[in-house]
Amino acid sequence: MPSAALHLGTSVEAGGGFQGTGAMAPSARLLTPKGAGAAAGPAQAQSRREETANGGGAGPDLAALRPTTTTNRPRGKAQAGKPSRRAPIWNLKAAVFASVVLNVGLLVQHYVSSTAPSHHHHRQGHQACPMHLDAGASRDRRGRQEDPLSVPKAGAPSTGKPAVTPDSVINLDHGDPTMFEEFWRGTGAAAEIVIPGWQTMSYFSDVGNVCWFLEPGLDQEVRRVHRLVGNAAVDGYHVVVGTGSTQLFMAALYALSPPAGAGAGAAPMSVVSTAPYYSSYPAVTDFLRSGLFRWAGDASSFRGDTYIELVCSPNNPDGAIREAVLSSAGSGVAVHDLAYYWPQYTAITKRADHDVMLFTVSKSTGHAGTRIGWALVKDRDVARKMAKFIELNTIGVSKDSQLRAAKVLRAVSDAYELPEAGDARRRRLFDYGRRKMVERWRMLRGAAAASGIFSLSEETSALCNFTKEMAVTNPAFAWLRCDREDVEDCAGFLRAHRILTRSGDQFGADPRYVRVSMLDRDDAYDIFVKRLSSLR
Amino acid sequence: MPSAALHLGTSVEAGGGFQGTGAMAPSARLLTPKGAGAAAGPAQAQSRREETANGGGAGPDLAALRPTTTTNRPRGKAQAGKPSRRAPIWNLKAAVFASVVLNVGLLVQHYVSSTAPSHHHHRQGHQACPMHLDAGASRDRRGRQEDPLSVPKAGAPSTGKPAVTPDSVINLDHGDPTMFEEFWRGTGAAAEIVIPGWQTMSYFSDVGNVCWFLEPGLDQEVRRVHRLVGNAAVDGYHVVVGTGSTQLFMAALYALSPPAGAGAGAAPMSVVSTAPYYSSYPAVTDFLRSGLFRWAGDASSFRGDTYIELVCSPNNPDGAIREAVLSSAGSGVAVHDLAYYWPQYTAITKRADHDVMLFTVSKSTGHAGTRIGWALVKDRDVARKMAKFIELNTIGVSKDSQLRAAKVLRAVSDAYELPEAGDARRRRLFDYGRRKMVERWRMLRGAAAASGIFSLSEETSALCNFTKEMAVTNPAFAWLRCDREDVEDCAGFLRAHRILTRSGDQFGADPRYVRVSMLDRDDAYDIFVKRLSSLR
Repeated sequence: MPSAALHLGTSVEAGGGFQGTGAMAPSARLLTPKGAGAAAGPAQAQSRREETANGGGAGPDLAALRPTTTTNRPRGKAQAGKPSRRAPIWNLKAAVFASVVLNVGLLVQHYVSSTAPSHHHHRQGHQACPMHLDAGASRDRRGRQEDPLSVPKAGAPSTGKPAVTPDSVINLDHGDPTMFEEFWRGTGAAAEIVIPGWQTMSYFSDVGNVCWFLEPGLDQEVRRVHRLVGNAAVDGYHVVVGTGSTQLFMAALYALSPPAGAGAGAAPMSVVSTAPYYSSYPAVTDFLRSGLFRWAGDASSFRGDTYIELVCSPNNPDGAIREAVLSSAGSGVAVHDLAYYWPQYTAITKRADHDVMLFTVSKSTGHAGTRIGWALVKDRDVARKMAKFIELNTIGVSKDSQLRAAKVLRAVSDAYELPEAGDARRRRLFDYGRRKMVERWRMLRGAAAASGIFSLSEETSALCNFTKEMAVTNPAFAWLRCDREDVEDCAGFLRAHRILTRSGDQFGADPRYVRVSMLDRDDAYDIFVKRLSSLR
Repeated sequence: MPSAALHLGTSVEAGGGFQGTGAMAPSARLLTPKGAGAAAGPAQAQSRREETANGGGAGPDLAALRPTTTTNRPRGKAQAGKPSRRAPIWNLKAAVFASVVLNVGLLVQHYVSSTAPSHHHHRQGHQACPMHLDAGASRDRRGRQEDPLSVPKAGAPSTGKPAVTPDSVINLDHGDPTMFEEFWRGTGAAAEIVIPGWQTMSYFSDVGNVCWFLEPGLDQEVRRVHRLVGNAAVDGYHVVVGTGSTQLFMAALYALSPPAGAGAGAAPMSVVSTAPYYSSYPAVTDFLRSGLFRWAGDASSFRGDTYIELVCSPNNPDGAIREAVLSSAGSGVAVHDLAYYWPQYTAITKRADHDVMLFTVSKSTGHAGTRIGWALVKDRDVARKMAKFIELNTIGVSKDSQLRAAKVLRAVSDAYELPEAGDARRRRLFDYGRRKMVERWRMLRGAAAASGIFSLSEETSALCNFTKEMAVTNPAFAWLRCDREDVEDCAGFLRAHRILTRSGDQFGADPRYVRVSMLDRDDAYDIFVKRLSSLR
């Protein structure tokens, strides 16, 4: 699945973490990086898991570390927010979260947009932020303080994470695929979409399809790009579209688990994956405490006949080519998350033809903000139930994004199948992606060698059926190990050097490892590599 | 919430129902309308609920009534699909579903796109379809038979349900708001959006916001339109965007229920609403069998201190103006679904300022296919948890649709706040919507009077703060009662006359009532009214 490398296991960083950060910075600074790192081992991981699974609810959150004057203050005009129904807990757990706070404290130095302008003067430590941009900041109509780097002009489309400078915190925790923006800036009208006000207003896209909310144009371009690349079989498959492949992952669990009424007291379906596994698999499986399915951990130690095995290949986080490890002779079924099975990341060695295969534009073309994924599903009944899940969850999937994804995929295929004079080669996504990834991996291996304290997996290569050339594997994430004896928490160590990554313990693995996104913009990536090479 | 009037309780109609319908028609026709109607009483409703809650899994589905040669046949090139893991059940339950099948059998006469082209000649009853368009049908590249009315050209955006003729089945079961297309065809560039290939590729929209995936431009236009209309307070509120308000409904349940770890053996939160309640509330609450919350039925008969009360006002299905019926003195909380609280449907009598309020473009502007809803949330912690739900569920919300929704809402506000010479009045959405709804309700009341066997709720009116005029209530759905003594199942009765509506029993109410969408296109609505007036 998804690719979707948002840090699902540590909500505080993505969701709450960026928010009201000004107020948190002082607390964060009370902790030394070393101390924070020490607190961020397995105990923290456990706590993070619980927080996610419990909905981030009763447990401590960052609000507990904030001055009370800014707690629960909404955006917009100043008005006392209703206090939280659950009291903040100033206890041990708060200490456990210290490193997360430090993490956020670092981020705050960039993401300084205030959410409590009327209490601006109450926020301590404000001046201490070296990157604080108060001098140049303006205020919008709602009185919100504007950071010229992070807040777009009124009404303008967002631009993602703010630009970075050599001193910035570099956030490579999420797999935000902004690397691809450069490519798409060069494609002009080929990938541009125009949507008139009256278009696609209905809930329905194709009343004759199992997936009645699937735009026929997207169905067509999905099949076409797979035929072009040869990475997955499409003939005889149903296409089910989802709001990113995360929704399709949930839809697959729903479709493949026995219905609740199937037997009195029937246990939830066990959901497993071989470690290291994508950190959002357990979080997404368990956050609603469904009675239909439940996370059951590492597939390699699972004992039982009934299960759903998630097979991510190339694997998130470590890029390994994977096969199902459990026999599907029993009543076990596999869901193949092939988000990274594209020529920019790995050799295409065979046409995958599994029962359920998940893909997403987030990692294939880089359009994460479009939130479009698709499943290729052999069995009609499974496809129908997946569509049913999406009907109940969101009543279908944005037509606008489906049309955009179709246009983007068409531009990809056209550049290979309809070469025009001159610039067709420049418009070939997979060529571009491969060049970039080869270059970035070369830089990373060089930096790791220069530093001497990091190791990476060995480079592997294979004949790619798409390019007809030998191709090395260039995963979308680096699975980086810190070899320094005194560093047990690599993520904490890097965080102290203002590099945000995701700890191995989030993936059911050793915290000496971290996952690092390889898909950020050039400026951020270059700073990361340079900084990494200087660490001893 | 959602407005989202897709028939969540009867998946077979929306999801599976349209599919492979050619094969079902013969079976459907074996049943007389009368017999089918008789089978479709409370028992059917119960079965429907179970089917939904159980994921539509083990129970009988329409595939069971199809010739085996076309079962489990996916789209695309002919290839034997993997058979379903669960055998079809040819038992009593199949009879219970008979009326649904009839329903679908009627639909098939319009939605004739085949999913099994290679077995085309096997489908019986093919020639019997009066509306079958085989003569004019062409085949696309995948060999799929094309219906010129329902299947758009290759790659073209979808157009929703196919056009109708005086003999057509008229499907007013879903609240598909295609009535508004006409308005938006007149707004030109004001509501048109252009998205370049490189835009909004990041997961992040506004890293300084609790709802970090919310486009700032949408936040701004949501606040602006509420200030214009005066239907809800926005100052001091957080805006949380969702993939339609259905997702926000689930997000609110997640945010307002105690986390699973809160207490050992803690019971799931009870979710209630006064009958008649929107049919998707129970379905969406229960389909994943969450341990966090559970549907507990009619609020007016609920006994307990801990609950989430859903207050839909104006109410879906009956248009009533509602207040919470349970005291919130205990630990109960209310979620206000204000999807229909707009000037085209009702007088705006006060600025709502509840803790959690849900809205959607599906019903405010008619853009159901865009799948954008928003919540106005007072408490920061609740907003944070709702955003967390959406992060775990879909990693944010389509930026493309957010930008489109912002553009559309801006066009709405501009037409009132920035009147240009000449045509500004023509571009006023609420004026247009009110004119249309007044006219449609006049036609419906006339038809009911002409028929003599139907009754509707009394017309009410109030001073609208937005228009400064007295305004009658023109709900987006009619709550129609069949007064004929021998008709106990109004939906079945109307279905026999080729009018598809949603039975009262889906709303926890009397099956002598049906809910009828008032928002379909003119052609379908006109045929409906004419046909209704002729019934005796």
